Amino acid sequence: MTDTPLDALTLDDLRRRTSVKWRAYPPDVLPLFVAEMDTPAAPFVVAAVTRALELGDTGYDIGTAYAEALAPFAVRRWGWEPDVATSRTLPDVMIAVTEVLRVLTAPGDAVVVTPPVYPPFYAFPRNEGRQVVEAPLTPDGRLDLGTLEEAFSRATGAAEHGGGPGSGRRAVLLLCSPHNPTGTVHTRGELEAVLALADRYGVRVVSDEVHAPFTFERVADGAPAFVPLLGVDGAERAIVVHSASKAFNLAGLRAAVALGGPGAAADLRRIPEEAGHAVNHLGVLAHAAAYAEGDDWLDALLAGVVRNRALVAGLIEARVPRARLLPGDATYLAWLDVRDALPAGVEAAAAHRCVLDGARVALGDGVPFGTGGAGRLRINLATSPAVLTEAVGRLGALFAA
Amino acid sequence: MTDTPLDALTLDDLRRRTSVKWRAYPPDVLPLFVAEMDTPAAPFVVAAVTRALELGDTGYDIGTAYAEALAPFAVRRWGWEPDVATSRTLPDVMIAVTEVLRVLTAPGDAVVVTPPVYPPFYAFPRNEGRQVVEAPLTPDGRLDLGTLEEAFSRATGAAEHGGGPGSGRRAVLLLCSPHNPTGTVHTRGELEAVLALADRYGVRVVSDEVHAPFTFERVADGAPAFVPLLGVDGAERAIVVHSASKAFNLAGLRAAVALGGPGAAADLRRIPEEAGHAVNHLGVLAHAAAYAEGDDWLDALLAGVVRNRALVAGLIEARVPRARLLPGDATYLAWLDVRDALPAGVEAAAAHRCVLDGARVALGDGVPFGTGGAGRLRINLATSPAVLTEAVGRLGALFAA
Repeated sequence: MTDTPLDALTLDDLRRRTSVKWRAYPPDVLPLFVAEMDTPAAPFVVAAVTRALELGDTGYDIGTAYAEALAPFAVRRWGWEPDVATSRTLPDVMIAVTEVLRVLTAPGDAVVVTPPVYPPFYAFPRNEGRQVVEAPLTPDGRLDLGTLEEAFSRATGAAEHGGGPGSGRRAVLLLCSPHNPTGTVHTRGELEAVLALADRYGVRVVSDEVHAPFTFERVADGAPAFVPLLGVDGAERAIVVHSASKAFNLAGLRAAVALGGPGAAADLRRIPEEAGHAVNHLGVLAHAAAYAEGDDWLDALLAGVVRNRALVAGLIEARVPRARLLPGDATYLAWLDVRDALPAGVEAAAAHRCVLDGARVALGDGVPFGTGGAGRLRINLATSPAVLTEAVGRLGALFAA
Repeated sequence: MTDTPLDALTLDDLRRRTSVKWRAYPPDVLPLFVAEMDTPAAPFVVAAVTRALELGDTGYDIGTAYAEALAPFAVRRWGWEPDVATSRTLPDVMIAVTEVLRVLTAPGDAVVVTPPVYPPFYAFPRNEGRQVVEAPLTPDGRLDLGTLEEAFSRATGAAEHGGGPGSGRRAVLLLCSPHNPTGTVHTRGELEAVLALADRYGVRVVSDEVHAPFTFERVADGAPAFVPLLGVDGAERAIVVHSASKAFNLAGLRAAVALGGPGAAADLRRIPEEAGHAVNHLGVLAHAAAYAEGDDWLDALLAGVVRNRALVAGLIEARVPRARLLPGDATYLAWLDVRDALPAGVEAAAAHRCVLDGARVALGDGVPFGTGGAGRLRINLATSPAVLTEAVGRLGALFAA
């Protein structure tokens, strides 16, 4: 299978790019860290942007076009119909998350995160004066109700207020669904239980669902493996954020949308109108084209990622047998535990530097992903088999040395 | 003269656009409100975006490419060389202003603005919990030192602290240079005096210079009329924000840069790294192309704006003689005082609605521009002479009725 978008470009092609992935390190380093994909621009994105430029349609965005474009895609792929009327188009996923946190909490309030998790989940809330409370995933990458309850109790100060659940400060649980970096797809049962628990503690649930289009395994009964939070019982007051930026490689042409259940509509309205000023209209047009016309391209991409994940799993087993690759059901990211593979004397927290210096491979450093991150590395699978084979080969040579 | 970018498109062309200007009102309304231009996309912008799409160069932005592109443009047009090393690339002008305000002030601190002024100068600081203190321009649209000193005293609480200048709270003066909506170009003497006064009160000066490329008159000695704040004596601690978004009609493909004097470098470094996450790399590439290759296109555009401003001034004098158009030296915006022209019984604050309903022309409502805004309307001159003639004709019919 060589007809996926991951098989179209050579390293020479890629090194002509001017983005972070290709300019952060010298050319002898294989970059597999940041969430950019080594795919050509999708033809429907090129067409949408080209048409906008032909019209000079480069002014300000207006209205709910983003959610209107997302809705049929969400119905087709996940059987979920977002409520367009509650939607707020925003410039970017983390700006959307931040604006939502600002309406749901005040400075000093807590945001519960489930590490190891996307590092901006720490930095953005802290930049707004919120406290980050960790509720780590299990070693297998699953949400854990006991851990969450303990975190909710701390986050809300329920215990210190003496009143038990519901008596404390405001807090938010910030989910990553599917989960970055582990590729965990939260099940309906897990999400229902988490929503019920959060409700008991008065904790609002916000879910970053940017990786949802990247759910590449489907459960036995044929239902989509990705479970949209707003389609789960008990999500009336939940808020989710979507974007086509990850699945269609549009980090450089951004837009995002926040959506809520009926009990969150008033909160979404409280996001200041100004928060939408920086929305890129060309981004909205490009993302809308992706949602409207991108199924086949995305399916080919998913097939490439599934193939690459199996390739890397096999290569790791053969070349770096003391490392452990977490089996994920989503995302183009793989989470590699190298704690038992590191050369003698290298501390877990130095794994990224060890691999960069020793193998000239730039992987995602696990440390900023929080508890459970040290000694882990995130591999970006959205590249060619040749690059992945070379990268794991270099890891094998380093760790065998 | 019909070879400017303002003469290329018909209303039918423009109504195919999907941006705010063309979708906010029904088709019988002539839209001359929001800061979008009725120009085709500039060819160098099309080429830059097309090349990025060919490379699939749609990942994350990195480094100081924005300031590197601005620097030679600033030297050519204004004789000012920005310090690239202090620069921070940010997603958007008002996001940049907001991030700067966040590092220079705390919630409760004051931001001094000089109304009538761009309405987001009120909303964005207030969304960050800052107080907005007004220091209105003179009736001729000039900065007024006495008014500013009184505002600095209130903003810093210097009087109540009993210590006079320099003894109070932190505060920022947020300048708009050139000034939106009046088109005022602040002179070097004015800026020097303002900087000295601000320094006495410990007030930091931040200048939004997004309209700088739109300075279309030049002073007698041949020097450019626009005076970059960071090129003025006493601006060591000042911060400015630039963007190609206004001059090259790229509201829908945004990016911006914050730059500082040597005494502001540490403040710019304190802007969180996360603030740059949402930068559109395609925006940076498009803006860089505009700065590199856009002089001739911009000069033709400026000629068209100068022509249109004279046209509108003449039409207003002939058709709406009781209205007064402020003579501006910059921007494609014209500030029209209609207080003495309104039909009997229409209050000044209702001028926008009166014109929208009665003439089916959507102008910028002066009220949100703050003190000095009621009874004024902002006209967007960046369109064809035919549209401007029709719009002023409709105003004339309404006000003569």
